[in-house]
Amino acid sequence: MNIGVIGYSGNIFKEPVKSLNSLCNDVGRIIAENNWVLVNGGRDGIMQLVSKAVKNRGGYVIGFLPWQVEGNDYLDFSIKTGLDLNMRSFVLLKNVDVVVSIGGEIGTAIEILGAYFYKKPILLMKNSGGWTDRITEVLIEGKFLDNRKLVELKQVPSIDELERVLKSIEEVKNK
Amino acid sequence: MNIGVIGYSGNIFKEPVKSLNSLCNDVGRIIAENNWVLVNGGRDGIMQLVSKAVKNRGGYVIGFLPWQVEGNDYLDFSIKTGLDLNMRSFVLLKNVDVVVSIGGEIGTAIEILGAYFYKKPILLMKNSGGWTDRITEVLIEGKFLDNRKLVELKQVPSIDELERVLKSIEEVKNK
Amino acid sequence: MNIGVIGYSGNIFKEPVKSLNSLCNDVGRIIAENNWVLVNGGRDGIMQLVSKAVKNRGGYVIGFLPWQVEGNDYLDFSIKTGLDLNMRSFVLLKNVDVVVSIGGEIGTAIEILGAYFYKKPILLMKNSGGWTDRITEVLIEGKFLDNRKLVELKQVPSIDELERVLKSIEEVKNK
Amino acid sequence: MNIGVIGYSGNIFKEPVKSLNSLCNDVGRIIAENNWVLVNGGRDGIMQLVSKAVKNRGGYVIGFLPWQVEGNDYLDFSIKTGLDLNMRSFVLLKNVDVVVSIGGEIGTAIEILGAYFYKKPILLMKNSGGWTDRITEVLIEGKFLDNRKLVELKQVPSIDELERVLKSIEEVKNK
Repeated sequence: MNIGVIGYSGNIFKEPVKSLNSLCNDVGRIIAENNWVLVNGGRDGIMQLVSKAVKNRGGYVIGFLPWQVEGNDYLDFSIKTGLDLNMRSFVLLKNVDVVVSIGGEIGTAIEILGAYFYKKPILLMKNSGGWTDRITEVLIEGKFLDNRKLVELKQVPSIDELERVLKSIEEVKNK
Repeated sequence: MNIGVIGYSGNIFKEPVKSLNSLCNDVGRIIAENNWVLVNGGRDGIMQLVSKAVKNRGGYVIGFLPWQVEGNDYLDFSIKTGLDLNMRSFVLLKNVDVVVSIGGEIGTAIEILGAYFYKKPILLMKNSGGWTDRITEVLIEGKFLDNRKLVELKQVPSIDELERVLKSIEEVKNK
Repeated sequence: MNIGVIGYSGNIFKEPVKSLNSLCNDVGRIIAENNWVLVNGGRDGIMQLVSKAVKNRGGYVIGFLPWQVEGNDYLDFSIKTGLDLNMRSFVLLKNVDVVVSIGGEIGTAIEILGAYFYKKPILLMKNSGGWTDRITEVLIEGKFLDNRKLVELKQVPSIDELERVLKSIEEVKNK
Repeated sequence: MNIGVIGYSGNIFKEPVKSLNSLCNDVGRIIAENNWVLVNGGRDGIMQLVSKAVKNRGGYVIGFLPWQVEGNDYLDFSIKTGLDLNMRSFVLLKNVDVVVSIGGEIGTAIEILGAYFYKKPILLMKNSGGWTDRITEVLIEGKFLDNRKLVELKQVPSIDELERVLKSIEEVKNK
């Protein structure tokens, strides 16, 4: 199963990324332990922290890079898309089974909406800040992003709950 | 000046597009009267209604089409992008000076966020429904979509106010 | 009718572009005189010379720009594609009815092959150099680029012949 | 090292692909034996045969898919690009260290030229037919595709020679 992880870009030693280090490490750990593939944007911030956590445990990481960007040091396969940052996000989203969102500014918001458009389930790490929390204020019936009700967004309060939900998505997928 | 108009797709004789016919006609009229270029997605719904209004008054309309989609009948130049629906939206957004938003489901929401990412001013037609109204619930300081404060979103209550704001944006642009 | 013109990029005051100034001027002239739309890559070299010739006669020019490139001064509408140079060439090719080729290095060669792939007729200006002449050495039955025989390439010896062939393509298109 | 393999698409039980079965099997074998990654277009024809040969020996295969195409059965990771067939070829080419070409019609010809544009060394399997052989008729100084001399094309007469040349490219890359 391909897990897309999205969230804040930026320097990992500065806020708001710094405080999310432990959460990112946990997310990477469960991805590696379950032999899932981490798919992300291959850059800094959340992408870097989760990639590192997966990679250090022998997991597999794929990064979709926008034009003229070199990937971080934790990618098994980095894909130079030759595309603008947002257009590459949409290619990334086509290639995941589920999206996990951690904090994030406008780029992350675009990815959350894009994931919904492509009907990929979206797991929002509760209290991770930014658009991951803000998007919950505008959900229709608490879980949809428009009236077509394409796929559900779900707030996830803990790493254990994240693993449980991901495993249940995998079960449905493998049926 | 290139005016991007975004909003609901769908059959123009059915709701929610049907009730927006008069508004779309007015938006098209001021675009044509001011010799602005209408740039849109070239398909049905709001795109079709505004294109028709511009075209019938001798204005110029450019449509950015996603793969395998034929444009509506009111395009002076239609651009087959060969891209997925959302990726083509980002190409469209790169090529406008300002965005006018009317109603809209998830595709429109993605375009509103994308416009903000590219720092294009966004004018939200008040009470036109969908994401054009919903997005106002999550604005930071009533006008921004993230903490970087890249560009302002503004609710516009009437067609006269829309024309006034567009003219003021044009003045700044031409300085 | 949309005429795509491809060929050498580079400084217009240096060879090999410099010597093609007169030919480019003639190509631009017949495009403007016939009210065709010039579609090109919007950059320097052949693109710039033909754009100027069309524009100076009141014709209409559309330029498809690769990422981070500003268009030349003779474009009525420039489309920032956000795409890598070659990917933008393929978007350009989707939006023309016929291709005229003048000289050209590898980028032009890719565009000639791409035009053939999309079944756009290709007119090769004879003795204009580069790949426009070189490609004739590998044509199958003197006019095809592979065994599928998708569309014909034709060498054109003069500007009068170019105009005649373009008019006959327009006639077929308008039937 | 990422090896891009390009060539004929089409039914693997029909000519011209059928007769290249043995060659494709050998190419896949040396890729797997050297722990290189096979990167290709993920579809039928040459792509399918080489993918199968790599996969059956425990190697790793990545396929870049154009829009609405499902990949063949031998891909470890398939990337839905959401792009038109040719545009996806250019993304593929950005992500390989070297290209091996076997037969091929116009799509392969475009990929050979694209590889040259991106300065990826191109190894042409001699007598494999199509554009892989035809391109040798227009090489400048027997090895370049334009006057900029961006990278060399080399005809390779045997599978042993292919392995030798790939190993030497890998050596240079690892220095």
